[in-house]
Order: sequence, then C-alpha cells, then structure tokens
Amino acid sequence: MSVTDRRLTRRGEATRARIVETAAGLIYAHGVARTNNEAVRSAAGVSGSQLSHYFPDKESLLRAVLRWRADAMMGLHQTPPQGPPDSIAALRSWADSNLTDETVRDGGCSFGSLAAEVMKSGLDLNDEIAGGFDRWKAQLREGLTAMRAAGVLRPDADLEHLAYVLMAAFQGGMLLSQGARDVTPLRNALYGAIAYVETFGNA
Amino acid sequence: MSVTDRRLTRRGEATRARIVETAAGLIYAHGVARTNNEAVRSAAGVSGSQLSHYFPDKESLLRAVLRWRADAMMGLHQTPPQGPPDSIAALRSWADSNLTDETVRDGGCSFGSLAAEVMKSGLDLNDEIAGGFDRWKAQLREGLTAMRAAGVLRPDADLEHLAYVLMAAFQGGMLLSQGARDVTPLRNALYGAIAYVETFGNA
Repeated sequence: MSVTDRRLTRRGEATRARIVETAAGLIYAHGVARTNNEAVRSAAGVSGSQLSHYFPDKESLLRAVLRWRADAMMGLHQTPPQGPPDSIAALRSWADSNLTDETVRDGGCSFGSLAAEVMKSGLDLNDEIAGGFDRWKAQLREGLTAMRAAGVLRPDADLEHLAYVLMAAFQGGMLLSQGARDVTPLRNALYGAIAYVETFGNA
Repeated sequence: MSVTDRRLTRRGEATRARIVETAAGLIYAHGVARTNNEAVRSAAGVSGSQLSHYFPDKESLLRAVLRWRADAMMGLHQTPPQGPPDSIAALRSWADSNLTDETVRDGGCSFGSLAAEVMKSGLDLNDEIAGGFDRWKAQLREGLTAMRAAGVLRPDADLEHLAYVLMAAFQGGMLLSQGARDVTPLRNALYGAIAYVETFGNA
C-alpha cells in the first residue's frame, strides 16, 4: 500500500466516522423513522454516493450507529477517571450524574432508546443490541467485582444478578422519566437498585 | 335520539374499537413507523373515509392505541381475579406470569415498547404516555397499600418509591430481555425488585 493509499484510507475513515456521528445525533433527536439518507448526507456534508459507499443500506448505518452508541455508553457509565463504579459512593455518583433534566428531556439513554426503536424496525440488528448491553454489563460487573474483592460486598453476592438489577433500573427508570418528563422515576429506580446492592454488603 | 340513531352510534363505537384494536396489534408486531393507514384500513375491514372519520391523523389514532394499551396493561398486571398483587407471593406470581419466552420474543411490554417508539416519533403524546404509567403506578400502589395495611410492609415503607422500583425493573428488564432474546435479564430485574420490597417487610 502506498503512502497515498494510506492517506486516502485515513481520510475515508474520518468521513465514515463523521457520517456515523452525524447520524447518531440526528437519530437521537428525531428517531430512526424520521432520519432519512438525505438528512444524514446533508448534515454530514457528504455526497449520496459517498454515503452509499460506506453504508449501502439503512441496516448497515444503524449497525454502525449502535456500535458507536455502545462505545459512548462505556464512557458515560464510568466514574471518570477511575473506571467503572467500584464503591457504593461511586454508584451514587454514577446515579446522580444521570439524574439531569437534560438527559430526560433530550431522549433518555442514547443506546437504550435507540435499541427500543430499532427492535421495532424489523431490521435484524439484535446481535448488535445484545452485544452493546453485554459490554455494559461487563463494565458494571468489573466495578462490582472490585467491590466484592474490597469486602464491600459479601463473597456470596451474585454479581451478574446485581448488574442486571442496576441496568434494568437505569433503562426502565429512564423510560418512565422520559414519559413523565421528570427525573423522579429514574431517581427512585436507581436509588432503589443501589440500596438493594447495599443489602449484599458486609454490614 | 331515535332508536336507529342509537344503533348507528353503537355500530360506530364497535367500528372505532375494531380500528383501535387492529392498529394496536399491527403496531405491536411491526412498530409505529411501519404501520400505515392502508395496513390498518385493510386489516380492520374499513374504508379510507371511515378510518379518517374516526381518526383524522396518525396522532389521534396513536392516542387511542396508547389508551387501549394502558387499559390492557391494567388487566395484565393484576393477579386475577384478586386485583393488584397484594402480597410477596402475589408479586412473585405476577413476575413469573411475565417471564415467558413469548412476551420477550413478541415485543416486550405492549405499552412500554409503544411508549418508547412514540416518544421518538415527534408526536405530542407524552400526556397519554405519562397517564398510562400513572395508572399502572396507582394500581401497584393499591397492592402495596394493602401489604402495608396487612403488616407485610412496615408503616414507614415508601410505597411511591417501591412502585417506581417495580415499574422500572419491569420496563428495563423487558428491554434488556428483548435485546438478548432471553428472559434472564427480566427475571433478575423483577426478582431483585421484589427482594428489595421484602427488605421493607416486618421481619
């Protein structure tokens, strides 16, 4: 591969990334159904042939957007810069950082709300959705494992179970809060889930 | 109003109900975006002018479908024929009755998954969504109130909090289970929420 080829490849990667990021933003704001190729093409500043070169159909673009959202979710659910929440205090910080009017108003969990819509789209993207949730679960388990190792949680605490409880509280609470346009349901869901995790603590 | 008028009114009500029920089924299976007027009209066996007589636009039809789904949800979340779950055992029965492969495969919570999609549709139906969730919360609170009155829960148990925890676990667990095509996340979410409710019990 020549130097010119490599440069084109890098430029191609940047174009592809710009398309994905632009589409992700439009879809978060307007939903999958109302985000068409023309809107993505125009907002990303690419031609129709460029768009179809990287993403020949809606499924391939949505797959890339789901992957990008899952990547972003991995960053969002950390307690920066320390990594996944690995103490009750860190779980509380994580909860509080999500209890904002903006998040509720703007569209909830950027990955979860997209997953909910894509599952109704008829496109076969369940592997991508399941993969994203699995990565999030692994991250939460990493923090819970540290808590168990540190003696915060008892040795018999079922970390897979607790990870599911936290994830469901987050996703369900976000849906209820979006519906109510109020963080109250999400706050109750997350605080309840964290209090439940505490019942597995070394009292 | 003559007898004939009354009959027509009743027939009109039946036609309207058939349209709503048909639309609800199509939307549950295919999503809002892929359910157009023609599909509803044809499946309900009504003319285009009949459809537009009862539902002049998509928003009015979706509003009626949300209301119908909320009504159905009130029935589903009871422990028939006794009413809302009013004991830990009844909560467990309620959870188990929802832990079916069919529910997960067919589209999750019929109200919650619709709410998630509608919130991305740009239509102003949040009042209907919030109203549906509020009715469900009131039903859960009714059962929790009975549990507190019976001494199953302590007098200081926050029933609003517990209702939110149960609802979020259900909605979030359903989303995760749909993504994974597996009831495991939902089972963990619901069992965790019920175990949390038990921590407010008179031990």
